[in-house]
Amino acid sequence: MNNYIVLKNRPSGRPKESDFEFKEEERPSPKDGELLLKTKYVSVDPYLRGRMRDEKSYIEPFKLNEPIESGIIAEVIESKHDDFEVGDYVNGMLKWKKFQLSKGEGLNKVDGNKAPLSAYLGVLGLTGITAYLGLDKIGNPKEGETMLVSGAAGAVGSVVGQIGKIKGCRVVGIAGSDEKVKMLQKEFGFDAGINYKTTENMKQAIKESCPNGVDVYFDNVGGEILDAAMANINSKGRVVNCGAISLYNETETPKGPRHETTLIKKSVRMQGFTVRDYQADFPSAVAQLATWLEEDKLTYEETIVEGFDSIPKAFIALFDGENKGKMIVKVS
Amino acid sequence: MNNYIVLKNRPSGRPKESDFEFKEEERPSPKDGELLLKTKYVSVDPYLRGRMRDEKSYIEPFKLNEPIESGIIAEVIESKHDDFEVGDYVNGMLKWKKFQLSKGEGLNKVDGNKAPLSAYLGVLGLTGITAYLGLDKIGNPKEGETMLVSGAAGAVGSVVGQIGKIKGCRVVGIAGSDEKVKMLQKEFGFDAGINYKTTENMKQAIKESCPNGVDVYFDNVGGEILDAAMANINSKGRVVNCGAISLYNETETPKGPRHETTLIKKSVRMQGFTVRDYQADFPSAVAQLATWLEEDKLTYEETIVEGFDSIPKAFIALFDGENKGKMIVKVS
Repeated sequence: MNNYIVLKNRPSGRPKESDFEFKEEERPSPKDGELLLKTKYVSVDPYLRGRMRDEKSYIEPFKLNEPIESGIIAEVIESKHDDFEVGDYVNGMLKWKKFQLSKGEGLNKVDGNKAPLSAYLGVLGLTGITAYLGLDKIGNPKEGETMLVSGAAGAVGSVVGQIGKIKGCRVVGIAGSDEKVKMLQKEFGFDAGINYKTTENMKQAIKESCPNGVDVYFDNVGGEILDAAMANINSKGRVVNCGAISLYNETETPKGPRHETTLIKKSVRMQGFTVRDYQADFPSAVAQLATWLEEDKLTYEETIVEGFDSIPKAFIALFDGENKGKMIVKVS
Repeated sequence: MNNYIVLKNRPSGRPKESDFEFKEEERPSPKDGELLLKTKYVSVDPYLRGRMRDEKSYIEPFKLNEPIESGIIAEVIESKHDDFEVGDYVNGMLKWKKFQLSKGEGLNKVDGNKAPLSAYLGVLGLTGITAYLGLDKIGNPKEGETMLVSGAAGAVGSVVGQIGKIKGCRVVGIAGSDEKVKMLQKEFGFDAGINYKTTENMKQAIKESCPNGVDVYFDNVGGEILDAAMANINSKGRVVNCGAISLYNETETPKGPRHETTLIKKSVRMQGFTVRDYQADFPSAVAQLATWLEEDKLTYEETIVEGFDSIPKAFIALFDGENKGKMIVKVS
């Protein structure tokens, strides 16, 4: 038999386990040109929340009662495809199924000897690439500048901060616990950290941690933390709008202070992006990240949850900030 | 005798005539290396409101009880400076005085035979340059795209729209009266116009005028019109934050819907600027604008108010949208 997970209801506000449904089917068999894949590691990411809404975006919404998909590392266990052999590991946008067929489209082989398989969902996968290209295309950090990162202990934020250090910036991270803040400094080499959950005046806290102001703000959260960063932004500052997890579960567009006067007075750029905008740059990004990893200039954290049944729970936990680094579900 | 105008009070909200004071002094005489200038045309611009606040910005605030300065065309009436002769006309940031001394710094000679003197404060001056460089550096309009412009009947907006047409865009303008909307289409060649004062649902009106969505939004006003434009922005859209006249008189930062989710989902860039950021590009911008003017690809409107005593009134009238095109005071 085979197990899979479908979207049962479009979540209203924070997703609940009852928005997902576990289903069973026969385990499929590959025809000519097809592979049978066994899911090893599943990536759960905040952006999936967006695909659960029924609205136009850069990517099609998930359909109700159909399997959800995300980044997955799988093992080829049967192959009737010339390019893949049994025992190959592949990375791709795949369905939340224990077993699934593929025609090989969009799959990339990964080498478990070069780096742990799970790293291909994190630092060497879309989250690492997102960090790298967000900075390369928009943030453009220069030596001696100050970089502020929110969601700094998360999968993207922790890589962003480390790249900031490689580029010679003062790097300050915002995270949601003292333990995470300690991790930012001890493991990822950030210069300072702010626990937003215990800080009353974020504007003032950023001012103290960034005495020369903020040149690059890499934003993973949006909302009031963005406002506090904008209050400290320098002339010609760049805001990389990568994520807005603080707003994803809102049912109406929240209001906040208008930023247009700051944008004008300080010649500031705010730019959103989706990593797919820069697909042509993926290979060079991965190559650079792999080099830094090999040179020990880059390290990463993972929160690995065990078991196929834990996938929805692990996804929901993202909104409580329960993960350190990349949140991954180990299925088999 | 000489007359001049000082800032008496920092305006709270909308500026009032009583925020300004007319003063008298002896008419000065030039020493070696100095010129005596007679003011001909004075530019009044929304950005001056910002300099009336006592807060850090890209440019120093005006000091209380000292003369205000803005873009001025003046005639050299006495010269003890090698580079200037009596009868020369010059353009520069000068004081609101009938007569003033200068050492020639920051003055550019202008040729009244090539274009009317007042044009050097508008289409060939900072407002034309602002329109040109805002589009060149940030908006980057491409043939076949849709460009939306607010404050479209103003000095900057009317040039922006015409450059949009030169670049092959569909251009839609937002202005504050039916007469102005008519002018946009008849005189400046806009494809469509929206009178925001008689339109209840701006979001819907923009949708109807921009059936393919908005690729470039050149914003001179900020606030709710920006929100309505953002609701219609296309993927990879560019917002040029040039002005926010709707907010300049606010005493507290107004609130509005948060735009970060739109920025991310649609990979949109919002970028503010001050024309001084691109000072090195002024000569090439003026050259291009002058060529278009000569080729009749560009036209301009002016609202000329007469008399030195009218300067404060003309400035205040900007906030009521009383001007069509560039607002200029003819002093002598």
